[in-house]
Amino acid sequence: MKSLTIQEINAIINGEIVGETTHKISGLEQIQKANNTQATFIGNRKYAKHWADSNAALAIVNDTIDLEPGDNRVLIKVKNADLAMAKLLEAFTPEAPYFETEIHPTAVIDKTAKIGKGSRVGAGCYIGKNVVLGDNVTLYPNVTVLDDTTIGDYTTAWSGTIIRERSEIGSHCIFHNNVSIGADGFGYRPSDDGRGLVKIPHIGNVVIGNGVEIGANSCVDRGKFSSTILGDGCKIDNLVQIAHNCVLGRSCIMAGSSGLAGSVTLGDGVMIGGSASIKDHTTIHSGATVGAGSGVMNDVPAGKTVLGYPAVDSREMLKQWVALRKLAR
Amino acid sequence: MKSLTIQEINAIINGEIVGETTHKISGLEQIQKANNTQATFIGNRKYAKHWADSNAALAIVNDTIDLEPGDNRVLIKVKNADLAMAKLLEAFTPEAPYFETEIHPTAVIDKTAKIGKGSRVGAGCYIGKNVVLGDNVTLYPNVTVLDDTTIGDYTTAWSGTIIRERSEIGSHCIFHNNVSIGADGFGYRPSDDGRGLVKIPHIGNVVIGNGVEIGANSCVDRGKFSSTILGDGCKIDNLVQIAHNCVLGRSCIMAGSSGLAGSVTLGDGVMIGGSASIKDHTTIHSGATVGAGSGVMNDVPAGKTVLGYPAVDSREMLKQWVALRKLAR
Amino acid sequence: MKSLTIQEINAIINGEIVGETTHKISGLEQIQKANNTQATFIGNRKYAKHWADSNAALAIVNDTIDLEPGDNRVLIKVKNADLAMAKLLEAFTPEAPYFETEIHPTAVIDKTAKIGKGSRVGAGCYIGKNVVLGDNVTLYPNVTVLDDTTIGDYTTAWSGTIIRERSEIGSHCIFHNNVSIGADGFGYRPSDDGRGLVKIPHIGNVVIGNGVEIGANSCVDRGKFSSTILGDGCKIDNLVQIAHNCVLGRSCIMAGSSGLAGSVTLGDGVMIGGSASIKDHTTIHSGATVGAGSGVMNDVPAGKTVLGYPAVDSREMLKQWVALRKLAR
Repeated sequence: MKSLTIQEINAIINGEIVGETTHKISGLEQIQKANNTQATFIGNRKYAKHWADSNAALAIVNDTIDLEPGDNRVLIKVKNADLAMAKLLEAFTPEAPYFETEIHPTAVIDKTAKIGKGSRVGAGCYIGKNVVLGDNVTLYPNVTVLDDTTIGDYTTAWSGTIIRERSEIGSHCIFHNNVSIGADGFGYRPSDDGRGLVKIPHIGNVVIGNGVEIGANSCVDRGKFSSTILGDGCKIDNLVQIAHNCVLGRSCIMAGSSGLAGSVTLGDGVMIGGSASIKDHTTIHSGATVGAGSGVMNDVPAGKTVLGYPAVDSREMLKQWVALRKLAR
Repeated sequence: MKSLTIQEINAIINGEIVGETTHKISGLEQIQKANNTQATFIGNRKYAKHWADSNAALAIVNDTIDLEPGDNRVLIKVKNADLAMAKLLEAFTPEAPYFETEIHPTAVIDKTAKIGKGSRVGAGCYIGKNVVLGDNVTLYPNVTVLDDTTIGDYTTAWSGTIIRERSEIGSHCIFHNNVSIGADGFGYRPSDDGRGLVKIPHIGNVVIGNGVEIGANSCVDRGKFSSTILGDGCKIDNLVQIAHNCVLGRSCIMAGSSGLAGSVTLGDGVMIGGSASIKDHTTIHSGATVGAGSGVMNDVPAGKTVLGYPAVDSREMLKQWVALRKLAR
Repeated sequence: MKSLTIQEINAIINGEIVGETTHKISGLEQIQKANNTQATFIGNRKYAKHWADSNAALAIVNDTIDLEPGDNRVLIKVKNADLAMAKLLEAFTPEAPYFETEIHPTAVIDKTAKIGKGSRVGAGCYIGKNVVLGDNVTLYPNVTVLDDTTIGDYTTAWSGTIIRERSEIGSHCIFHNNVSIGADGFGYRPSDDGRGLVKIPHIGNVVIGNGVEIGANSCVDRGKFSSTILGDGCKIDNLVQIAHNCVLGRSCIMAGSSGLAGSVTLGDGVMIGGSASIKDHTTIHSGATVGAGSGVMNDVPAGKTVLGYPAVDSREMLKQWVALRKLAR
């Protein structure tokens, strides 16, 4: 376990030290649970009252909050305690899980696959024909990468992730557990006798940019033809559905259990709240926000916030909710 | 990569060729991205304006749309460009991922299991006691099939899929990545001392008909006793939940992130929209449709369309939405 | 297959036997599908009319329902047929899937891991550095447990489950297929140049009590720092999302496709309906219930039932729904 002095910590977060302590800091904890080897955070006035009774030796505090450090304890005052916390978390990040060897002997790697320098492939992984892994790629145990897929440098796939054939994955991406990339899209046509459904082949692929993160048990389907595309820096939470031929711009955020139906387009920097869902062939323009739980049935203009089911401008929806509450009385 | 002449393509889609080209066609692409070895589709007047600037050598066009082919380019006029596209996608479908051997040496197959002719089992698969695979079954790497399960001819399971014990799976089915078939249903009883919950064993199984497709990361739970049943031709999208003892008729469609609680019955040809959810012990009769995002709390008569939360007849719900919008003004 | 006499069955459920039969009972089935070696249940008057035409040799009947057994058939009258069914299901539970050896030779187990007495590890499992499995733990084939995780006695993980590093799992837990425990939470900060997002490291872990059950394809993310905690006896259905730093008390129930955003607190015995979602940093106090499909945006007092989107007291929401229906006419 790492252990840092107050001075070493302040070198990371550039605040103002108030008070003194003999304790060194080896981790971070919530204010009511922390012990005297842990730092805590006070980014909000409502947590300040717990400081007196906390066992933490150090609190990182927003400089607008008035507090005294107390005996053998220290405050570091910063502009933004949340941002300081994010930086300090990096300092305390423990080692990633251990790899005995770069390529585990139980991994099955087709002889035509190419593995870059410093890349590591865990036990039970499968790597198909013509797959190309860049440098410093990490595949944790039991990851499957099918034929003709390319994966860029420094990308990590956690156990259980499946990346199907012909996917194109950028660098510095993270795939969490049990992610499914490149499954067929959901499309059928009536059979010629009109009595059943015939599968429409999906011969496209998935193209994922750089710095994309995809949460556990989320799915990105391949295009019918052409590609399903996630732009650089998109951040996708757990249990999210991204259907065939969706196109996401740069740095879009989709929170847990949200979903895009087929051929949805997101501009840059779009934010989709948790459990929200978007109708097929809809466009959400750059900078727009979809509130949690919403069901979007129409295009959303740039920068606008929509909310509700069916989703409309958020202020309009709040008015609807108030009006309905009054009506019911 | 396959390459087809205009004449070979028209032999598949039976349209009317207008114009001539020296190009051969090796794939399909959207009208604004296509190059001169690719075909595109114009099934809707709004895409027709892009034809003049497209680099595609061929467009499959609805015959109600008035267009000229241009120089060294061809139109094939058809009744239904979408249907022609579906057929052409089949012609251009690339080879499925490669198998080095029929049964990969790292697969673990219990000695009592029976594997039919032409069936292929990928690296890292596990096949339990008394499992019976029909002919031409394909299990991609890292699929798990537990004891006493039977799987019919030509069924495919993609990597990460788990099929638990005593499941009965038909022929020509497709299971996409990380599908979970046959996990215990969700049922508890109060403990005898009233202070906790006791698990109700689920001793039933899952029975899946022929031609069923189940999307990535979807779940079908086993029956408490008796079976959870999916009829022939059902098509289930990604991240769908089908709880214990549900019974689905033939050719039902469930879109992404939708869910059925326990003991729901769907007739034949029922369509469930994306993110919709259905209360336990409810019956949705044949030919009924549940709109996207709906929450269904009551039985739905045959052929009816319901919408909203709580779901009612769709026209009634549209009226409610209009009335609320007016009220808020 | 087990086969029990009427007397052996009644020794389990302690009812009153009415009638006689020469048949022995080897399983349970629904009243309209049962044959004469099967028992069925009549816990509700609406099923009583099917008894005359049923082929079942035995029905377990609520003692408030008036029925005659008929020729060579038996009724066992009980206070609560559902409870009797739950106990009888235990008696008929078939053997769990077969293990050839305690530790399958294809499992990869780090030499620093400790495996307790009677524990079984299936084919293709991976167990990382310093993992500690208690006694009688069962890992079905293709389970992954990463470094420094501890798992208590009698816990079972079904195939496809991934438990990431430093998780602390209690005893008598069940993880169904493709569960993801301990993936990073979903948190980002703006990059210093304001043009992108930087991942916030999640250095906490997941702590799961005793007797917890987690459904197929569900996710529990690790804490940002500190822990995401599930109390003893929590029962989580399929496709459920539990985000970073959530804290669940004892015996909470979350039905299928529901989700908690980050830092949600549930008291003891909270019930979350299917497809419901809860806003981040919200507290649902002990004994409260959230109706299916609800979207909760505010704290919920102890014992209260909330419903709808946005969720309010359930009686208030029912009034809103009635008022809107009237308004639309």
